[in-house]
Amino acid sequence: MIEVAIMGHGVVGSGVAEIITTHKRKLFSSIGEEIHIKHILDLREFPDSPLCDRFTKSFEDIINDVEVRVVAEVMGGINPAYDYTKRLLKAGKSVVTSNKELVASKGAELLQIAKENNANFLFEASVGGGIPIIRPLSQCLVANEVKEIAGILNGTTNFILTKMFDEGMDFDAALKLAQDLGFAERNPEADVEGHDACRKICILASLAFGKHVYPDNIHTEGITKITLSDVKYAASNDCVIKLIGDVKVLNDGKMDIFVAPMLINKKSQLANIDNEFNGIMVRGDCTGDVVFYGKGAGSMPTASAVVADIVDCCKHLKARKYLFWADSTNDNIIPYNKSETSVYLRFCAEDPESALIKVKDLFGDIRVLSIENKAENEFAVITPKLSIDKISDCLSKLNNDGVTVLSKIRIGDL
Amino acid sequence: MIEVAIMGHGVVGSGVAEIITTHKRKLFSSIGEEIHIKHILDLREFPDSPLCDRFTKSFEDIINDVEVRVVAEVMGGINPAYDYTKRLLKAGKSVVTSNKELVASKGAELLQIAKENNANFLFEASVGGGIPIIRPLSQCLVANEVKEIAGILNGTTNFILTKMFDEGMDFDAALKLAQDLGFAERNPEADVEGHDACRKICILASLAFGKHVYPDNIHTEGITKITLSDVKYAASNDCVIKLIGDVKVLNDGKMDIFVAPMLINKKSQLANIDNEFNGIMVRGDCTGDVVFYGKGAGSMPTASAVVADIVDCCKHLKARKYLFWADSTNDNIIPYNKSETSVYLRFCAEDPESALIKVKDLFGDIRVLSIENKAENEFAVITPKLSIDKISDCLSKLNNDGVTVLSKIRIGDL
Repeated sequence: MIEVAIMGHGVVGSGVAEIITTHKRKLFSSIGEEIHIKHILDLREFPDSPLCDRFTKSFEDIINDVEVRVVAEVMGGINPAYDYTKRLLKAGKSVVTSNKELVASKGAELLQIAKENNANFLFEASVGGGIPIIRPLSQCLVANEVKEIAGILNGTTNFILTKMFDEGMDFDAALKLAQDLGFAERNPEADVEGHDACRKICILASLAFGKHVYPDNIHTEGITKITLSDVKYAASNDCVIKLIGDVKVLNDGKMDIFVAPMLINKKSQLANIDNEFNGIMVRGDCTGDVVFYGKGAGSMPTASAVVADIVDCCKHLKARKYLFWADSTNDNIIPYNKSETSVYLRFCAEDPESALIKVKDLFGDIRVLSIENKAENEFAVITPKLSIDKISDCLSKLNNDGVTVLSKIRIGDL
Repeated sequence: MIEVAIMGHGVVGSGVAEIITTHKRKLFSSIGEEIHIKHILDLREFPDSPLCDRFTKSFEDIINDVEVRVVAEVMGGINPAYDYTKRLLKAGKSVVTSNKELVASKGAELLQIAKENNANFLFEASVGGGIPIIRPLSQCLVANEVKEIAGILNGTTNFILTKMFDEGMDFDAALKLAQDLGFAERNPEADVEGHDACRKICILASLAFGKHVYPDNIHTEGITKITLSDVKYAASNDCVIKLIGDVKVLNDGKMDIFVAPMLINKKSQLANIDNEFNGIMVRGDCTGDVVFYGKGAGSMPTASAVVADIVDCCKHLKARKYLFWADSTNDNIIPYNKSETSVYLRFCAEDPESALIKVKDLFGDIRVLSIENKAENEFAVITPKLSIDKISDCLSKLNNDGVTVLSKIRIGDL
């Protein structure tokens, strides 16, 4: 019997307890021993829980229990999860977590502590919920040089964008629907502004390239400015718009990493990932494109990934898993204004015809998009591949000519 | 330094040698030791290979070399791969393979021998080429009861079906193109008759449900009878046709497993997997549907999966991986005629109108399909969900009425 503890009894934590209880036989046959939940840490009371005798409000009950070998941290947030995780690893206990904020901001340090104490720190559930991605990336694709990872990493924004495309809802209406259906928080900022996706692409980048990528200085753009006009222009170009976390390795070995909405061709595998689903494309030098698809959030999918990590820890009580990345100062990342891309631009101009001529002069080989019933003073184009710097430069030259940029969205080559 | 041997220097084997050579640094940083190719077994001569000094024609050089800890079996076929693999495992050497025929027909026995000799027998490359699926299924999804696995497991047939749908080529023309492009063998039977897909779904079923499923008695239908009329009727119903390997667990715990072409709704994640790509959907009770997509064959994708298994063996020289299934007599599988499904039926009749009335009487709540420019005496319907037995029964009753069944294709609920 292997004693484990669960810190947090919220959406994910209660799912973890449920799966360990209901899937006992399956888990036993995988490990050869029973997993037993000895403690559940939560400040709230759960008198009706079948596990009500396991609850504690004191972390000390867990850290001081020598029998507890594996702990699931599913509280979320940095404090006190960070402090607790550190202490547990230092005590030689393995920790598994679904906490993307913790992994994205403290991963390198915690992996180092785990290594020093011969414990495991696993976090399959921190990216993509129930979609297997951390383990495939670190194990199955180990014989590849990863060239790029691009993912729809946030279900809330993908649900909103899907509703905008499929049902012509505007952003506000789609957000409200997402909130009503429980896919979006009352305060949706972390989702719609891209911060959640940013943490996840940073975790994937750290893992794939071996150096911690901190989210702080990564260009992160959300979807709040996307309009139904953009949706129509995208569709006219056989594209959808998706919020993409993207990291690619440039020829000089530096990383181009950002979160931004992108126009994606409908033929792309990521284009067909709709509603609250997530999808992650890994471009390896040997495998080519490999895509992982599924529910990126939710109690049971996420909890099942946490339990899979618990199982892995139970099988590796003596041996360490080789999941690791080194600390870094993000100095291997190019500034966002050096990033190169085609962009979709939508303009409003007093004199659209002459404005279009100026845009052509500035950007070179553009493609003009057309939709039915477009606003009278509006036009939209797709530029050739240029640096963000160069694009801003060109746009600034239009400023004084009665031309306003209404939208600027990257074109994805995915 | 860990000494390995490669048996076979064909498409996959040469890729394995190349990856170990060119990705030396990446592999070293994962294992902490260098992988060194000591022997390559092949009866042919490769005087121009940079590894020409490692070639041997004698298996005894490998089995008798105590330094060799891990062997990649990439010869294909049952003989002598089966005999060699058995001897290597009995000698305590770990074996990794891309050989789906070997795993599908001898997996249980080889896993048992591996267990007894504290060696590993891994086969990530045997299904889905470079797509991670064996490890995700056995590790990441371990906290799920798998309900169903359905996959496009053969790139050749998927390429042919894609060309039939997208370009209106008939089967023979699409097959010829696949052969010209190197996606199909000169003798394409194993692909187009579904045998290759059958081996792969058997491996996945064995792994997911813990008992060996032997391909011999599994219903296996290929795509040779699919016509452009079927393609048109499918499209009229918002469907594509894909060759699917499918296994699901029924309420009584028995398995419904088969390989057959299926009409799949265009909205399904498997519907958008085109050309030579493979895709595998795993339906877990906790995760919901998870889909894995990528190149299912080819030298480098497959070789990279073999090398990932070599790396895993190198990390587990002392500990066994818990990949295992028990032997079985396929007695947990229902006979195919008990399998339940809706089917698409295309008929030719002397008197189509009265034939349609009879079809309605026999099948109950059918849906009639219509396409432009249909052949005069032809009609097509979709039946309600019935057992294959019941469907055959109904069809036999039409036999004497001047009605001919031109096509019968399952409808997939994927």
